[in-house]
Amino acid sequence: MQQPIAILDSGVGGLTVAKEVMRQLPREKIIYFGDTARTPYGPRPAQEVIRFTQEIVDYLLKFSPKMIVIACNTATAFALETIRSRVSIPVIGVVHPGARAAINRTQSGYIGVIGTEGTVNSGAYEQALKQLSPHVDVVSVACPRFVPLVERGNFRSEETYNTVNESLAGLRSTRIDTLILGCTHYPFLAETISDVMGGQIALISSAEETARDISTILHDKGKLARGDLLPVHQFCCSGDPQMFKMIAQQWLNEQIELTPIVWQVPHIG
Amino acid sequence: MQQPIAILDSGVGGLTVAKEVMRQLPREKIIYFGDTARTPYGPRPAQEVIRFTQEIVDYLLKFSPKMIVIACNTATAFALETIRSRVSIPVIGVVHPGARAAINRTQSGYIGVIGTEGTVNSGAYEQALKQLSPHVDVVSVACPRFVPLVERGNFRSEETYNTVNESLAGLRSTRIDTLILGCTHYPFLAETISDVMGGQIALISSAEETARDISTILHDKGKLARGDLLPVHQFCCSGDPQMFKMIAQQWLNEQIELTPIVWQVPHIG
Repeated sequence: MQQPIAILDSGVGGLTVAKEVMRQLPREKIIYFGDTARTPYGPRPAQEVIRFTQEIVDYLLKFSPKMIVIACNTATAFALETIRSRVSIPVIGVVHPGARAAINRTQSGYIGVIGTEGTVNSGAYEQALKQLSPHVDVVSVACPRFVPLVERGNFRSEETYNTVNESLAGLRSTRIDTLILGCTHYPFLAETISDVMGGQIALISSAEETARDISTILHDKGKLARGDLLPVHQFCCSGDPQMFKMIAQQWLNEQIELTPIVWQVPHIG
Repeated sequence: MQQPIAILDSGVGGLTVAKEVMRQLPREKIIYFGDTARTPYGPRPAQEVIRFTQEIVDYLLKFSPKMIVIACNTATAFALETIRSRVSIPVIGVVHPGARAAINRTQSGYIGVIGTEGTVNSGAYEQALKQLSPHVDVVSVACPRFVPLVERGNFRSEETYNTVNESLAGLRSTRIDTLILGCTHYPFLAETISDVMGGQIALISSAEETARDISTILHDKGKLARGDLLPVHQFCCSGDPQMFKMIAQQWLNEQIELTPIVWQVPHIG
């Protein structure tokens, strides 16, 4: 039986990673968990995010995944090392892939990061970027109003434009040439962010880059799927299944089945 | 003492990988080996390329590297699996990073590959691309005249333009939107290749992408360098040191020291 890649997020944001895995690694089977009952994670204390992440990982391990992807920047910032120390399969987060891609892309050495309060206050991107290269300058801005917009499916309205425009005003006067979308929800808003920032700023989707890193690590470990049958993915969420299904089908551009199994998770909801 | 990353190539081509490692991972120390006495590898039989690669790896292991990078597409195509099975540290080649990046980049699903006869005839890129995604179409063209141009330092002459123009004529009528420079020598010719193919074709440098994968794998293994001192790199070549030094200093834009140790390698030269 094919071992899936387990992808978890605070809600629908990790679907941006799932979509990229489907595109870049169409042979791979995905088991997805969106903790929509407890989204957003951004404003929560670190210990709570670690506990929630651990609960979801415990649940996903029952599916015998070959890798765990923490497709949430806040959970990556707070819980990646804890989860890594507790499980024996590879665990990757979304911070380092985005950081690597930004360093690959920037010419000026000035890199912007937008994320939740939790991610920005943790300094995770700045640390990852500086660990890779001492030469870069980093400007970080928390955008706490973005995730609730995305979780309501509100991607392209006037309200969205105004929120993005106000949130990014301070970034437009900086010397950045590269902007990391440091939250997996933000690719849903990429067109609006690009409109606001201008086309000359390279947007780095941590989702796209994480899918690439998944490919690199599975190849390094000889664990890439080899089957010719296209896999059937599984999706779980802890909150309202109708809203999750609506957003997921719109974003992935295909029908999905939500498994009822999610409602049996202890401590969730 | 800081463990270096060992990078090997048939000649100066792997310097494109070294340069990207210096840019993307400036804390990492490099030990480089260019087998300039025996370049090009492209027309050689597989068994010979495997033997040469093994000899260089045996030599480089004396420097206690933390990773071996086969920065030569021909050697990757023929020798990667052999080397992987023989050493206990991570070994990465340049084929899969380029393949991954191309799949990430293409919109049309039509991908071009240019490389040496050895690389193209091995089918290594087609295999790597199809392993990742059954949906892509691949067009491969061998360009045996490119490596000798680069090894002579001839990057931008009329002879170079004419050679590139003739070699890529067949590719211009295809539907590719992405072209993999499937030889680490080719980034030296990137401007000419771009002039010939037109700016709408995305060029994938396996060098740049390999540096990124080095970063991913070292991070996954907790092996990224943490020192604050910038490292001093070491370069070795088996052939004419003057030509190697001239090309290396021009490409890397810094002075390099060639270590005399290279002349003691058994079986080389």
